[in-house]
Amino acid sequence: MSGTLKLKRGEERRLKAGHLWIYADEVARLDVDAPGGLVRVLDDRGHAIGAAYANPNSKIVARMLARKPLDELTPRWWRERIGAALARRQRLFPTPHYRLVHGDGDRLPGLIVDRFGDDVVIQAHTAGIERELANVIEAVDGLLSPANIYVNNKASSRKLEGLPLETRIARGDGDGEIVADEGGLRMLGHALEGQKTGYFYDQRPNRAWIGAHCREARVLELFSYVGAFAARALAGGAASVTSVDASARALDYARRNMEANGLAERWQCVEADVMEWLPRAIAERQRHDVVICDPPAFVKSRARLKQGLRGYQKLARLAAGVTAPGGMLALASCSGLVSEDDFRKACLRGVREAGRAGQIVHVGCAGADHPWLPAMPETRYLKFHVWMLD
Amino acid sequence: MSGTLKLKRGEERRLKAGHLWIYADEVARLDVDAPGGLVRVLDDRGHAIGAAYANPNSKIVARMLARKPLDELTPRWWRERIGAALARRQRLFPTPHYRLVHGDGDRLPGLIVDRFGDDVVIQAHTAGIERELANVIEAVDGLLSPANIYVNNKASSRKLEGLPLETRIARGDGDGEIVADEGGLRMLGHALEGQKTGYFYDQRPNRAWIGAHCREARVLELFSYVGAFAARALAGGAASVTSVDASARALDYARRNMEANGLAERWQCVEADVMEWLPRAIAERQRHDVVICDPPAFVKSRARLKQGLRGYQKLARLAAGVTAPGGMLALASCSGLVSEDDFRKACLRGVREAGRAGQIVHVGCAGADHPWLPAMPETRYLKFHVWMLD
Repeated sequence: MSGTLKLKRGEERRLKAGHLWIYADEVARLDVDAPGGLVRVLDDRGHAIGAAYANPNSKIVARMLARKPLDELTPRWWRERIGAALARRQRLFPTPHYRLVHGDGDRLPGLIVDRFGDDVVIQAHTAGIERELANVIEAVDGLLSPANIYVNNKASSRKLEGLPLETRIARGDGDGEIVADEGGLRMLGHALEGQKTGYFYDQRPNRAWIGAHCREARVLELFSYVGAFAARALAGGAASVTSVDASARALDYARRNMEANGLAERWQCVEADVMEWLPRAIAERQRHDVVICDPPAFVKSRARLKQGLRGYQKLARLAAGVTAPGGMLALASCSGLVSEDDFRKACLRGVREAGRAGQIVHVGCAGADHPWLPAMPETRYLKFHVWMLD
Repeated sequence: MSGTLKLKRGEERRLKAGHLWIYADEVARLDVDAPGGLVRVLDDRGHAIGAAYANPNSKIVARMLARKPLDELTPRWWRERIGAALARRQRLFPTPHYRLVHGDGDRLPGLIVDRFGDDVVIQAHTAGIERELANVIEAVDGLLSPANIYVNNKASSRKLEGLPLETRIARGDGDGEIVADEGGLRMLGHALEGQKTGYFYDQRPNRAWIGAHCREARVLELFSYVGAFAARALAGGAASVTSVDASARALDYARRNMEANGLAERWQCVEADVMEWLPRAIAERQRHDVVICDPPAFVKSRARLKQGLRGYQKLARLAAGVTAPGGMLALASCSGLVSEDDFRKACLRGVREAGRAGQIVHVGCAGADHPWLPAMPETRYLKFHVWMLD
């Protein structure tokens, strides 16, 4: 039942090394029934090297699913592959709170599954996954029997695949609220109305680092969303935390999170655009001992790389301006298109423009539930640098 | 009393951005009284941009000490600079066990000071620091009043500076044994007869990660030295640990460390060259759930980069060969000349040669007592990748 994708000469090499993406200019011939359909991938001599799903309308024309050809994607195949991802998490995490499937990192490109105890949130980023959603839901249901399975298909990248933006409840009668357990804290979010799946597990180890290093500190959390850094900092003994975010709804969740964990007393928030608020804070000579700056992705396409790097530079400059002498400034980027080195340079320019200097005392990464493929370094998207400023 | 170093045109730019090293071909004129002597650093128009010490016999002809010219390095200056490094550690570490001065990372190039509670070990890597050792010892003594101050000047890099290899006790009547407190464990080493200062604090956060993720696992520790990964793994609930090292003396310390921490029952060791032992272990079909591979630096000069990368590749191949399916393989490199990307690629080649594939679930860095300068990415030397293999 599968179609065929024949590669040009030599284009199989990168895939054999473990890369998953096939670009249009690497393809000699493509026959596929519909966008997202299964194909056998052949080298230029006609030898099968694996299975992929293909979408002729996408820049990344096909994404590898397996190292041997498949005639069809069966419910059993999905259960095995998601089951393997589950086994990896169960080795590493003590509670059922993690990203269960991390797309390319679990060699299931386009599929995101976050598990919040008894609730599961699924995202399909590509036509290939969209076609298989019923099988994915069935597999997740069979493996975990969760109370609720939510489908949050609002990621703007779906437009590139010709897919509509929509949300739905695939199983259960939940109200969309999810609770993440992070380091013993209960963190609320919303599976259908928040950002992404409702909660960002990826910064978990970096939040743990901050929590362990901000005793008695005055902490500023920029782009706070639901206040996850704030909660870890307060639980770790911070004297106070101020969270800044443009979304009243996110801050409402942040407030509920501080209250649910008995941390509200030392917490306050400001509803404001961070880029507009920081110059005012600088003018007021605000100084914070620890400043955490975790903005949304500034670079969503290669065309916007330079502009995005200027954005990180500006943000580093402004954030350094409210960091106390001897204080720590944590600068994060979740733009996969920005290399760690370019990010370091942009931040260095910004910090220097602020008239400051310092050292980097910690480099963090995404948690172990966000694995990346060594043959695809572009799947390592999260950068987290902690500076100590003079 | 200081000499003068005049830069060629434009060569001040990198230094103004925060870099510390000056190469011979960047220098227009150098007047210095003796190797390691203090100089004013001038740009090509004669404007002073800072102070450095200079050694005409070294490839790196001068290293910056300050952003303003200094007439001399006084005891007070050393006390302020080492005191600033101390203040940074005291913010980050709950007990007096850390690298107190990390050379370039603390903008004191060539100087290493490790603190083990009441014992301090100093290393001078350059002629510039060698000349100032009395001041350094005085400053450390004044700040910490330690029981013992050891000077371990056995680093082979001293030969490049024309310095002899030697050790001595500068203060106290200690026997050279030091005890590092790491995560509540007491770890023994020897300040004068072991490797470097006797103990490697740099892997502390990576050992903590391993300790948190090896419950009930059979663990293999390659290049164990005094067994620091082994101890954290056992304290974290590992079923067993086997440590392999070529040094009987290091393994003797490892045994004492396991005994001192009540961990000896689940621990065993093998005295062997790791590269010779691994093929035998593969032939015996040994399989370990967690394999930790933390070799000495394979690349100590640019000329040996390719050869060193082949070494990392071979080691990754052999270590993957004794990693159980679904198991974790932690691969480290402390070669500052090897980029993280080159290290990843070498390991990927090796793992593929072993017929294995997998994901990277964790990327670690050196601890916060090993800061690095954002303008000098080459000062970020430690790489630590944890693979999960299929």
